Formats: sequence, structure tokens, C-alpha cells
Amino acid sequence: MNDTTPFTLPAIEATANASLQARLQHKIDGKTKPLGALGRLEALALQLGLVQRSEAPALLQPQMVVFAADHGIAAEGVSAYPQAVTAQMVANMLAGGAAVNVFARQHGFALQLVDAGVAAELPAHPGLQARKIALGTKNSSQEAAMSRREAEAALTAGRQTVAALPGNVVALGEMGIANTSAAALLLARLTGASIPDAAGRGTGLDDAQLQRKQAVLARALARHPATQPLDAVAELAALGGFEIAMMAGAMLQAASERRLVLVDGFIAGAAALVAQALVPAVRDYLVFCHRSAETGHGRLLAHLNATPLLDLDLRLGEGSGALLAWPLVQSAANFLNHMASFASAGVSEK
Amino acid sequence: MNDTTPFTLPAIEATANASLQARLQHKIDGKTKPLGALGRLEALALQLGLVQRSEAPALLQPQMVVFAADHGIAAEGVSAYPQAVTAQMVANMLAGGAAVNVFARQHGFALQLVDAGVAAELPAHPGLQARKIALGTKNSSQEAAMSRREAEAALTAGRQTVAALPGNVVALGEMGIANTSAAALLLARLTGASIPDAAGRGTGLDDAQLQRKQAVLARALARHPATQPLDAVAELAALGGFEIAMMAGAMLQAASERRLVLVDGFIAGAAALVAQALVPAVRDYLVFCHRSAETGHGRLLAHLNATPLLDLDLRLGEGSGALLAWPLVQSAANFLNHMASFASAGVSEK
Repeated sequence: MNDTTPFTLPAIEATANASLQARLQHKIDGKTKPLGALGRLEALALQLGLVQRSEAPALLQPQMVVFAADHGIAAEGVSAYPQAVTAQMVANMLAGGAAVNVFARQHGFALQLVDAGVAAELPAHPGLQARKIALGTKNSSQEAAMSRREAEAALTAGRQTVAALPGNVVALGEMGIANTSAAALLLARLTGASIPDAAGRGTGLDDAQLQRKQAVLARALARHPATQPLDAVAELAALGGFEIAMMAGAMLQAASERRLVLVDGFIAGAAALVAQALVPAVRDYLVFCHRSAETGHGRLLAHLNATPLLDLDLRLGEGSGALLAWPLVQSAANFLNHMASFASAGVSEK
Repeated sequence: MNDTTPFTLPAIEATANASLQARLQHKIDGKTKPLGALGRLEALALQLGLVQRSEAPALLQPQMVVFAADHGIAAEGVSAYPQAVTAQMVANMLAGGAAVNVFARQHGFALQLVDAGVAAELPAHPGLQARKIALGTKNSSQEAAMSRREAEAALTAGRQTVAALPGNVVALGEMGIANTSAAALLLARLTGASIPDAAGRGTGLDDAQLQRKQAVLARALARHPATQPLDAVAELAALGGFEIAMMAGAMLQAASERRLVLVDGFIAGAAALVAQALVPAVRDYLVFCHRSAETGHGRLLAHLNATPLLDLDLRLGEGSGALLAWPLVQSAANFLNHMASFASAGVSEK
């Protein structure tokens, strides 16, 4: 793919494989532990095996990608922070000072930052990929956040970003002032959730600010009639988020290459909604890493039939929750690959 | 302390320190993230700072200690597995094949195994500390599980085990067929929980077996009238568990040295109940690592006012849940020590 590549959706294979699943489950059940005693890690080990088509999955060169973009709807006062914070936080990440840097270093992730559409010309930096679609989206309460062509370009850019990465695990995160608004709009549109159920306090709105945000989002949703039948690219274009579009593209590309995808919180979850609407089989490759404190995330997760690994009242974004959950993914692979079996260890079964 | 040391309880200082707490909270709130956005990790960072009396806590040479022992009450058929599995699993751990080995290697924990009272003479092994109190406890449904002298010896042995360890973090785990029965009895006695609320399926009882276990435990509890006022050592002696007693002693010693203690699941939680009954300030040093799938753990955690870090339907013991939660403890220290502040990074506040 290159910049002139026309927009296409990748082929993604569902991971279901009854024979491999039976062999994996047999291996899991033979480990020296009571049946099922590793709980959710056992389901995760099964998922890893199916994703990698292997009874001994190996997690290689995990990559963290953070997509940053601005949102026209920020002009409506839907965020607790000024829009300038998006660019400031990109600079903070490039300097290594943000939460995502700290946790990426802790867990040995290479970190890629992508300018998906920050509303400022960012100085060139070896740690920053320039994939800016525009200087922020337009204000979706007044017009479409982006054109269809821009939405397709963003999806393609997300795919290209992942296609260029080594390894078989990709964690996805984001930075973008007002992006809980775009995510809430997509959640409402793609799942039928009401605006009060979908839209929360984001980075820390008070009651009056939250009311205002919900009124703005209701207006934005009404401004753009739902596509019938659903056209997820059109919804993405109307309701926006360059970083959300790129994350959706990144998920699709990763799944098409049978990489495991670590999904962070509410915003990354909205990208997963879009990706699943485009190619349902992408779901098999997603690991939902944490349940965000943000209103709406529960509804989003239920729609995707997802139970995340962590529930720590996080609401930071950046991919921080994906990185925090990562050692559990490693543990799932490790017990599958390295624990003794009842037979090999000479331990009596029930 | 040595083998003839008389039983004493260590002095433990509560960690409360209003001035340090205010400085830690100021540091946490100044990090480049929305206020409170790291959720439970922020409370954990505060606890680490208070435990270490430092605004820059450092986690050093973490140690995993697994105490193994047998239980006379196993003769009543309260476990899904035969008693021989305790010794077999100790051998599996010495060979490096158990879940605790896999996760200890993953996270760089030194692993100590302690024979607290396995019902078999175990061959000497450099990886096994011989602190056997007896060849298993007696059957508490018929007589006291141990004498007061044995209970005191086990508490002291737990203290000695920790006193000899380097580092400032100790994770505690256990192995012992039928030890959910001893833990459930202590839970019922120390919190007033009913036997049906306290006693669950352990390693995998079916309905009929669970009913039998609950009947046995009800008999055991009735056999030993509650001490008035509460004498936690006497209750420990009556209801048993050499490994539970040693874990309680280990917690007390660790707290007296201002080490952080990672508490695994239901059985380690019962040890925490005993330790807190003996010296309430121990609670400040405990990090509850996971919410076990075992019935009764919720009640136990509520009594200790504890919300664990993980909730993954684990019910394996061995300290496995403590190790799985460890990276989150490291993340709490890391964000506190290494994230940039709004001021240092030039990021706008709300």
C-alpha cells in the first residue's frame, strides 16, 4: 500500500477451528492446576492459540501505536481541557514523559506516535509519523467531521501504519481533546445507545458541563441521519475522529495479518465498533484490556460481547490500559507453554 | 529470632502520615493526566509511598514465598483431590513446573518454598525450607487442628522466613489440599459469616460434595466454641492451617519491617484476617491482588475493606494471583516516579 492506494477492506479470516480448539483445551486442562483454575487467562490462552493457529503461541515484538488528532467539536466546549493540549501531549510523549511512555518502557513495547490530524503543524521528529489528514476534524454538530474521502484515507493510513510494523502484537491508543465526544457519537449510532448512556465526563467535566456536552452530542447526532443500511464509513465520516478511523484501520490490518490487537479503553473501543461493523471477523483478534470509568464503555463492551481483563477505574487513554493489561497476555502464553502437565509432573488428578 | 525464640508479636507502625500523604497526592495530581485518571493505580501509589515513607518509593528484590501444609480435615472428603497432591505439587514446584514457577520467572521473583507441615517426609532440596511443624494438622472436625504451642511455632516460623529475605516486597502463597476448608472456618469464626457463605467448591467439588463439605465445616465450627474475647491464636490453633499460620506470621514480620505484602487469594486472605486480628496495623502493608472465584472471598475482602487489583475468576492459589497483579504495583511506582508533571512538560491544565 502507498499514499495513492485506493480504499479497500482487507480479508480477515475468522479464527474458529474446532480441531485446534480441542487440542488447546486439552493442553490447558492437562496443566497441573484444578480444571479452570486460571479463570479468564485460560480463555485468553485459547484465543492466542487460535489467532496464531498454534498450540504454542509466541508473542513477538509487541508494538504500541498512539494516534493523535483534534476534533472540531471541541469548539463547543465539550472537553475540560483546551484543544492545545493534544499537541502538547504529543510533545510530552515524544519527550518520554506521558503515562504511555512509562508503561511502554516498563513492558518493552516499541512506541510509535502518529499525527493523524492534530490541529497544529507539528515539528518533524524521528518518533512521529506524519499522517495528518487535516488540521483536526470539522465540528460534527454543524457539518460532517470529515469527507468520505478523508475517512477512507484515515482508515488506509491506519492499515499502512500497522503493515510497516514488526511483531505479532499491536496495542492501540490515542490522544485527542474531545475524542470522548466522537467516540460517544459513534457508540450511540452503531449500538443505539442513548446520548446520556453514551456520553460521560471525559477528562473531568462537572455536572453543568456534562449536560452541555450531552446537548451538543444530541444535536450532532440529529444533524446526521443514520445510514440505512448501515454504512460504517459514512458514519465515521459524519461523526468523526481521524485517530478513531486510523485505529479502526489498524485493527483491520492487524487482524488480516493474524496479529493480536490490544484494545485500550473507550475511544479505542469505539474504533473496534467501527472495525467490527466493517469486517466482523476482526473481533476474533481483539483483546479488550480494561473497563474504563467513562460512561458508555460498559454499553460498548456489551455490544462487542467483551469482558476486559482489568477494571481499575482508568480513564486516561493513550493506550495506557492496553499496556497495563499486557503482562496478563504474556502470562496466558506462559502458562500454556511452560507449565507442567499432570502426566509430566506425576501429580494425581481428581 | 531462632528456633527457641518465644512467641511474640512484632510492633507494627500504622502508615498514616498526613503531611507525606498530602505531598504524595500533590505529586500524583501534578502528573500529565486528567485528575484521578489512573484510577486504582493512584491509590496504590499513595499506599506505596506511605509504606516506604517516601515520595519516590522503590520496589526492590521482590520475593515469592509458598508455604505448603496438609490438613487433617482432608480425611472428611472435603477436597476434590487426594492429600498426596500436596507433596506432589511441592515436587512440581521444586522442579519448576507449577503456575507459581512460571509467573515467578516471568516477573523476576525469587521463589522460596517452605514445608510448613506436609503430611510426608520430603527429601531435602536446596529450594525447600524445612519448617515442618507436624505431618499435617489434626482433623478439626474432631479435635483442635493444632496445639497453641504449634500455632505459635508456625507464626514464629513465618516471621523467621520473612526476616531472612532480602528486598522490600513479599508475595505470599500456599499449597495444601483441603486448605479452603481451614480458610472458610477462620472466615466464619473471625467475621461471623455463615458456613454456606464461607465455604465453596475449592478445587472443584460438585453439589453433593459441597454439601458434605459444608456439613463437615459446620460440625468443626460447633466443636470449637468461639473465644470470648477473641483470641486469634486460639482460633488458629483450633481451626488450623500450618501454612495459614505461617503466612499470618510472615505478614506481621513483613509489615514490622515496612515491606509491602502481596496477598494472593482466599487462603492468603484468611491469613490476613488472622494477622489483622493479632496486629490491626498490618492492614496498611497489604495489597490484595485478586478477587478469587472461591465462595467466601467477597465476604473476606469486605471485612478487610479491600478491593483487589484483579478479578479474573482465578482459584488456583500458590501465590499465582499475587504474581499476576505484580506488574500493576510496578506501574503504580513507575508512574509516580517517572511521568512528567504539567509544569515540567509544559502541558496546559484544566
